[in-house]
Amino acid sequence: MGTDGLVTLADIEAAARRIAPAVRRTPLLATSLGSDDTPVFAKAESLQLGGSFKLRGATNAVAQLSEQERARGVITHSSGNHAQALARAARAAGISATVVMPDSAPAVKQAATKALGAQVVLVDLAQRAAEVERLRADTGAVFIPPFDDAAVIAGQGTVGLEIVADLPELATVVVPVSGGGLISGVAAAVRALAPAVRVIGVEPELAGDLADGLARGHRVTWPSEATGRTIADGLRVQAVGELNWRHVEAFVDAVVTVSEDAIRSAMRRIILEGKLVCEPSGAVAVAGCLEHPDVLAPGPVVAMVSGGNVEPALLAEIVAGVA
Amino acid sequence: MGTDGLVTLADIEAAARRIAPAVRRTPLLATSLGSDDTPVFAKAESLQLGGSFKLRGATNAVAQLSEQERARGVITHSSGNHAQALARAARAAGISATVVMPDSAPAVKQAATKALGAQVVLVDLAQRAAEVERLRADTGAVFIPPFDDAAVIAGQGTVGLEIVADLPELATVVVPVSGGGLISGVAAAVRALAPAVRVIGVEPELAGDLADGLARGHRVTWPSEATGRTIADGLRVQAVGELNWRHVEAFVDAVVTVSEDAIRSAMRRIILEGKLVCEPSGAVAVAGCLEHPDVLAPGPVVAMVSGGNVEPALLAEIVAGVA
Repeated sequence: MGTDGLVTLADIEAAARRIAPAVRRTPLLATSLGSDDTPVFAKAESLQLGGSFKLRGATNAVAQLSEQERARGVITHSSGNHAQALARAARAAGISATVVMPDSAPAVKQAATKALGAQVVLVDLAQRAAEVERLRADTGAVFIPPFDDAAVIAGQGTVGLEIVADLPELATVVVPVSGGGLISGVAAAVRALAPAVRVIGVEPELAGDLADGLARGHRVTWPSEATGRTIADGLRVQAVGELNWRHVEAFVDAVVTVSEDAIRSAMRRIILEGKLVCEPSGAVAVAGCLEHPDVLAPGPVVAMVSGGNVEPALLAEIVAGVA
Repeated sequence: MGTDGLVTLADIEAAARRIAPAVRRTPLLATSLGSDDTPVFAKAESLQLGGSFKLRGATNAVAQLSEQERARGVITHSSGNHAQALARAARAAGISATVVMPDSAPAVKQAATKALGAQVVLVDLAQRAAEVERLRADTGAVFIPPFDDAAVIAGQGTVGLEIVADLPELATVVVPVSGGGLISGVAAAVRALAPAVRVIGVEPELAGDLADGLARGHRVTWPSEATGRTIADGLRVQAVGELNWRHVEAFVDAVVTVSEDAIRSAMRRIILEGKLVCEPSGAVAVAGCLEHPDVLAPGPVVAMVSGGNVEPALLAEIVAGVA
């Protein structure tokens, strides 16, 4: 970490070495979704083990536990993808994991987390942090936060290293934002390696706490009654993390929001034109590219397709154009 | 070409140099579809420009036309993916293209071919060759066959070069078979570069003319009433080509068949677990891996996901588990 408390390129490069045996290096794929001036490439973290980028941060955090911490196991709260990722990272490390999930989390994510050997505890969305605190006090398990954590941010930042290595000429990178773990790490990596590249965050309008906070000049929290309504179930967090807020202020050029219709439309195009299965949250960056071409620099754009864990029924609805 | 008339490694390497500017180098992706002994990797030609491997062969054939031939334009018949590919290759080369398609071809493939600037002529499945012959006589257009052609085979064989480069330790490669263009080229490349690798062909049971012919010791033709019934609309050809038959005899270890249920099930798993959109024909190689593990050598398996051009309604049905 730098003296300012922000994650450094060295932290991210160390994370890359640490997690390499446990994660996939995902492909950067040309698509037909952009324009001639701003061709869009998809960084397909939907093809990551477990179906999302989250494995990177979880693996980096678990790899740095002491022997005593390993013996007590790990715990977290998550709408699903971080849960699966921590369960997988814990299983690979041979330690126990407990996951507190909102009872609104998709069944496919609950089932996948259990199948990876984690204990799953379901609570109301707003009660997640309190329940984690209660269980920590009971069991001594180590909390691995989903985003507001330097080790998690450094792990997610390895996506940025791969993007710059695969497409050194990129002009813009577009990242979905929920708690801010992915954009914090990616922005730190890209800013260090390719300072001229524009880094853009995208939120659903219904969960636009970061864009709102940037407009007001300070971090804000949105009610779960608002954020819980977006189709992008991975992006329903009520506020970016404190450490994430500081990374965004330091490294991110702009944050835009997209409508629910734009998310559905982008998801359909990624599937039918890009031939990649994505979850709603995984379509938000592409939706940002399509709805806000003005924020893109001329030149190649990398849009993060951050995950592919979608309920079959929703996938069918989106493809059929019903939803 | 070798003295035996078969495509050589040199032909395929020349094709790779010729087509490199016009095609994508597709990723080889780890999946969770195999077993510990036979992990399955997907060669995702669904992510190729136009959504299938066919662009490779068409581009290689068009690149070798004389100036006089270019002036007369090109013509072919195809159930869809070769049509799109030839249209795209012709457009890139600045020449005209005519495509004769069966009137049963998916609307999405007809529309895509027209959108690429080709003239589309619809006829009954069994009348395709005769209609091409009539139009050739009228216009002097050069026939670019979908599979029974050395330049097309060499182009498709470039997939084999990429597989061996990306996974030198592969033990088995599994390829869907229709007319035999893809398996001919891939088998020629793999046999030359990695002689110990097993090369397996897979057909739908309803279009099992190659497996049938191999059992009888000679090439056979199946009625279109049979082959027309498989969900794998890209594999409804009634007989492998003559040149393709000779490549299969020389280079392929075994050909197996899969049921319609196995194709649907494999398609669903590729989409929901592998996170790749595929068409039914593109799922046939994975179906072969899942239904016939006995034909796989111990070690990594590469299954060709040959295309991703599927009607949205069918995709929705398969995902929902209705079909």
